[in-house]
Amino acid sequence: MNLLLLCDRDFVRAGVARVEDERVRHVAKILEKQVGDELKVGILGGGVGRGQILAISRDRLDVEVHIDGDPPARLAVDLVLALPRPKFVGRILQAAASFGVESVTLLQTARVQKSYWQSSVLEPDRIDRHLRLGLEQAADTVPPEIELRHDFRSFVESELPERLANRPGLVAHGEAPTAFPRRVALPHTLIVGPEGGFLPDEIESLVAAGATTASLGSRILRVEVALAVCLSRCLPDAT
Amino acid sequence: MNLLLLCDRDFVRAGVARVEDERVRHVAKILEKQVGDELKVGILGGGVGRGQILAISRDRLDVEVHIDGDPPARLAVDLVLALPRPKFVGRILQAAASFGVESVTLLQTARVQKSYWQSSVLEPDRIDRHLRLGLEQAADTVPPEIELRHDFRSFVESELPERLANRPGLVAHGEAPTAFPRRVALPHTLIVGPEGGFLPDEIESLVAAGATTASLGSRILRVEVALAVCLSRCLPDAT
Repeated sequence: MNLLLLCDRDFVRAGVARVEDERVRHVAKILEKQVGDELKVGILGGGVGRGQILAISRDRLDVEVHIDGDPPARLAVDLVLALPRPKFVGRILQAAASFGVESVTLLQTARVQKSYWQSSVLEPDRIDRHLRLGLEQAADTVPPEIELRHDFRSFVESELPERLANRPGLVAHGEAPTAFPRRVALPHTLIVGPEGGFLPDEIESLVAAGATTASLGSRILRVEVALAVCLSRCLPDAT
Repeated sequence: MNLLLLCDRDFVRAGVARVEDERVRHVAKILEKQVGDELKVGILGGGVGRGQILAISRDRLDVEVHIDGDPPARLAVDLVLALPRPKFVGRILQAAASFGVESVTLLQTARVQKSYWQSSVLEPDRIDRHLRLGLEQAADTVPPEIELRHDFRSFVESELPERLANRPGLVAHGEAPTAFPRRVALPHTLIVGPEGGFLPDEIESLVAAGATTASLGSRILRVEVALAVCLSRCLPDAT
């Protein structure tokens, strides 16, 4: 946690927030903060600033909040991602939020087991928690929009072409004849398949919808690693 | 698993290997292979080729092996990494092996809890397992060398300068004035700190040893994500 992320309901009065969940333990045990200490704070969907700790116990944290800055700029990337195995969803959403992508669409594909959609990791509260953890990691306040699409063909034929008209689409695909660019011009739509990849006819559909395929090389990387590699090529140069 | 990785002791006679561990379950349950099916195989530290399944049950797999190719080229990167929290060591070693780095040095730094060194994840068998899983993911056969260095100062003053004379060192450091290059000229030594980063005097020591600092930007990424971002900049262009 590199920022304590607060939302409106955390405020007990103007300028003072009270936290009574897992964030308290992190501030107390991991960051080892005490009364009087400062820490970076942010308002969900809003600004960032400093907080001073007024009181801290095992299960409660009171913090005086001064917001005076903006969160980091968004990364103008829409991510379209084959729904990962449930055990990987959390950390992948955390990473996507840390990079500051604008949206994540989780998509059914042939190699995605239909049972994954029943997993409790897709409950809104669970998703929100992982996004919050990713934002707290990156000291950001604005989560990506999350969308679920259970029907590959319907999404790719009816929705994707319009999206790609505004934001060109790049599909990470090991067998593509061209290399994944080292610098992706933003905005862009990044499309990442499941472990095992897209089927050839899925690739055809994505290309028919207007996307371009690009290869990361012969080494097959886990989805979470491949995603970081793709997003690495989208990051602005540090200033 | 995109390749079944075999070692010499798996061979029951010339050209026939017998596997009786977790790899069997993966081939049977995840890849759903049956007698007569083929799969990609490799010899630990050696070549790659095809295997044909002679027999498969719940706990035993016999495969006829034909080796006729080379594994993918190494990535000429030596990784120096602050020892991660034990729960992350496995997946980080898997990722490093998947990228094909030549060595990983796990290093004590001020923000690494000394207790991490007592973790069972550092037992040779556990390390080997994670390297094998990373190689099987990337269809590679050659694991990185793993070295453990418990003394930051001794490593950085006595060992690192000589290493960097052969392979320039790049430290991922958020506050560095220059951006992390989009294409790292290989060979290179990549130096990645712990969650929370290196201390200022550790950065000074690394620079004194000959390393250069470079920033990935203002967003603070988890070590495993930052590592993938750095290695992404080292990958050759896909051909």
